Amino acid sequence: MNNTIVIFGGTGDLTHRKLIPALYNLFNEGFMPKDFAIVAVGRRPYNDDIYQKEVFDSLNEFSRNKVETNTWNQFKEKLYYKELDFTQDEDYCPFNEYLNRIDKKHNTDGKRIYYLAVAPDFFSVIVKNLKSDCMKAIEHKPKLVIEKPFGKDLASAKALNKEIVSAFGEENIFRIDHYLGKEMLQNILVIRFGNVIFEPVWNNKYIKQIQISSYEDIGIGTRANFYEHSGAIRDMAQSHLLQILSLIAMDKPKSLSPEDIRNEKVKVLKALHKYTTKEIKEKVVRGQYESYRKEVNVAPESTTETYLAFKTFVNNERWKGVPFYIRTGKKLPKKSTEVVIEFKDGINGLYKGQTSSNCLVIKVQPRERIFFQVNTKRPGTDFHINPVKMDFCQNCEIGNVSPEAYERLLYDVIRKDATLFARWDEVEYSWKFIDRIVDAWNLEVPKFPNYQDGSWGPKAADELLAKDNLSWINLEMED
Amino acid sequence: MNNTIVIFGGTGDLTHRKLIPALYNLFNEGFMPKDFAIVAVGRRPYNDDIYQKEVFDSLNEFSRNKVETNTWNQFKEKLYYKELDFTQDEDYCPFNEYLNRIDKKHNTDGKRIYYLAVAPDFFSVIVKNLKSDCMKAIEHKPKLVIEKPFGKDLASAKALNKEIVSAFGEENIFRIDHYLGKEMLQNILVIRFGNVIFEPVWNNKYIKQIQISSYEDIGIGTRANFYEHSGAIRDMAQSHLLQILSLIAMDKPKSLSPEDIRNEKVKVLKALHKYTTKEIKEKVVRGQYESYRKEVNVAPESTTETYLAFKTFVNNERWKGVPFYIRTGKKLPKKSTEVVIEFKDGINGLYKGQTSSNCLVIKVQPRERIFFQVNTKRPGTDFHINPVKMDFCQNCEIGNVSPEAYERLLYDVIRKDATLFARWDEVEYSWKFIDRIVDAWNLEVPKFPNYQDGSWGPKAADELLAKDNLSWINLEMED
Repeated sequence: MNNTIVIFGGTGDLTHRKLIPALYNLFNEGFMPKDFAIVAVGRRPYNDDIYQKEVFDSLNEFSRNKVETNTWNQFKEKLYYKELDFTQDEDYCPFNEYLNRIDKKHNTDGKRIYYLAVAPDFFSVIVKNLKSDCMKAIEHKPKLVIEKPFGKDLASAKALNKEIVSAFGEENIFRIDHYLGKEMLQNILVIRFGNVIFEPVWNNKYIKQIQISSYEDIGIGTRANFYEHSGAIRDMAQSHLLQILSLIAMDKPKSLSPEDIRNEKVKVLKALHKYTTKEIKEKVVRGQYESYRKEVNVAPESTTETYLAFKTFVNNERWKGVPFYIRTGKKLPKKSTEVVIEFKDGINGLYKGQTSSNCLVIKVQPRERIFFQVNTKRPGTDFHINPVKMDFCQNCEIGNVSPEAYERLLYDVIRKDATLFARWDEVEYSWKFIDRIVDAWNLEVPKFPNYQDGSWGPKAADELLAKDNLSWINLEMED
Repeated sequence: MNNTIVIFGGTGDLTHRKLIPALYNLFNEGFMPKDFAIVAVGRRPYNDDIYQKEVFDSLNEFSRNKVETNTWNQFKEKLYYKELDFTQDEDYCPFNEYLNRIDKKHNTDGKRIYYLAVAPDFFSVIVKNLKSDCMKAIEHKPKLVIEKPFGKDLASAKALNKEIVSAFGEENIFRIDHYLGKEMLQNILVIRFGNVIFEPVWNNKYIKQIQISSYEDIGIGTRANFYEHSGAIRDMAQSHLLQILSLIAMDKPKSLSPEDIRNEKVKVLKALHKYTTKEIKEKVVRGQYESYRKEVNVAPESTTETYLAFKTFVNNERWKGVPFYIRTGKKLPKKSTEVVIEFKDGINGLYKGQTSSNCLVIKVQPRERIFFQVNTKRPGTDFHINPVKMDFCQNCEIGNVSPEAYERLLYDVIRKDATLFARWDEVEYSWKFIDRIVDAWNLEVPKFPNYQDGSWGPKAADELLAKDNLSWINLEMED
């Protein structure tokens, strides 16, 4: 399974911080094919030498494994830089000849992976050229890895999809949502279906509510050019949060094949409650942090949301009546991604009023942790019931560093396992859900900013749950 | 609820190590009634002073709380010693007058608790005198606390029971099984019925097997006179182990009232599989440790068992087909009491052959701990499933000392809450189960000794499970 991995956007942040370190660590741990080549493509007038030096520095900064001279020397033999102006159609023929030589040198038998790590504006022109007579994508069946955002709404996503499917075929397309490569997201299916004790209570008879949260303490940094057009809803909700929701809510797949798993996930997205415009006002909360409009390159009257919370339902037998509360935000008090499953309290009726709800918490980051809040007798002569936490933490011990999401995802691209990549229909139904909200939002101008930096977001987000006699759950274990 | 607590056997080990420290700690933590008196009764010619000094020393040795001068001074004001030969009927009238004076001094309104902390041989004569014209137990309705062993078989237990019930009435009798006062045994019902997630899987659809173990590394020490007549089956199985089994297996009680709880427990004991003599040979294993016959006061050809293991079933809908494996032994590699509930593996069928069974472990001692073995993805780029432990330990932190079982039990006697005491029918059905085994054992002379000191018991105990393709589970957490 030797491959030539061609990264468009070879000098970009993503490549330096994530892609090359991931490939290096895969190589270091023996997960790369026998032979391979990495061709970083960019507009800068670098040569292999300069590029390798730059990569060496970023590896030392971003790789989770220490860079050993020996390994590095082997690795850099496979690392190339190729200058290319993506917009110049006529440059693709010589580019292809260049790649042919690399293919030959590394025995990749013409098997290529094209990784689009560039701004979405370039997707179209690159794809057009990849299917041109020079590169003949359709004929050679290379794999295409495409970074999010996959479109900016359903219409643009459809257009993009049409383009890439016609050039590559759905089976060769890997739509990256790097959250799906995170250890604890991969773990959700194992926890649910690899243990007999969860599935019997994984339904509306036993579950009271589900909260999915992903927030961070930092702001947008220098990403205004991207973020102003994306906002929290496209940056976080459209893919990451809806993907987590679909993993948590999906029915048991027929098998672990990528198609069976994705069939069940897409059913969840299709079953998401369809808001009316009125409901969106009541059940979807957007926010913008106090200092957002003062960030570099942000419009002074920007209406981009940096916070989003909503309540939804999955309209099927299993989940009828169980609210799902989702939130994401920047400049919140801390960084965390977690799923909280709160079970109904007191179903047995015996210890009425004395117990707390059972909660299963799946922490995705920064800790990779599962804990379960159960009721036990408080030690002591008198009788009181205390909630306590049964805990498993996988990266709490020092030195216990899980692989980066991109390692697993690149490994899967090479092996052509699409399980952890979004299929087109998943993207499609996510956008349908998101577009409905965005369309309603566009009908009025929000009163922004509406939450303080370092607070837990707009007041309306708390009120959203207060209406249901609930509140956002922060079942803290020391982080 | 002031009470005069009269302890027969006031100079004995149990009183010094357990009962007085328990009463002291209850007092220290504010759980004793406003006024009370403790009258230690024994044959030694002590006075209050001498006895108090002895108690002070043993408190310093055995109390879990440091003995503070202030508290001790208040406590010892309520602590008396009375010399009495239990067998001299004529001494009980003056004894009662003595107690009347104590009652008056401590405003106990004649409310008494008689605690029989003496050898079983004395039970009968003491009870006879307590119901005599001098002491008039029936009229004054004192409470009677009686230590195990409650009889040595069903016949003797029945005789003893008839005697005490006629003297005190069932509602005033507290048959002690101090295991029931242990924190984690009190916790079993809370875990099962105070959490919604366990009951749905607490049955033969999801549970593969249940193991209940209680063993220790020490031998019989200086207890040969007792142990030679008791053996592991009467010392451990008849009450402690069958009590644990009934708490684990019982159905949900109608309420938390003592009667409703004990109604359900006794149903389990009644539903225990009734062995044939042939089955006993196959399903019950007895053992004796190598050096047992060399212990002080042990007969050179003793056939007393120091190890016992058996397989049984609870014949009802919930447990049909689920084997319960029970073991106890002395001179085993370490001390532990624990329940292991192993769930069926691979019911979902998705990760066939890749998962381990879910196991819920309730550790009773030395650690008070619950842990749950679940399957998670092993962190790493490739896909492997690892069993990991979600853990809650209540007494693992230094200084976190749970109350002694006797504290809770004495507190309950004072409050007249019989939940944690064996009702007569529980004792009755336990003996029926035990007698069947003892009767079969009596038909042949065992080949003793049959296991080495410090080993895991006789080979036959391993074979008992091997026949079912199982083995004894030791899911270690560091102790």
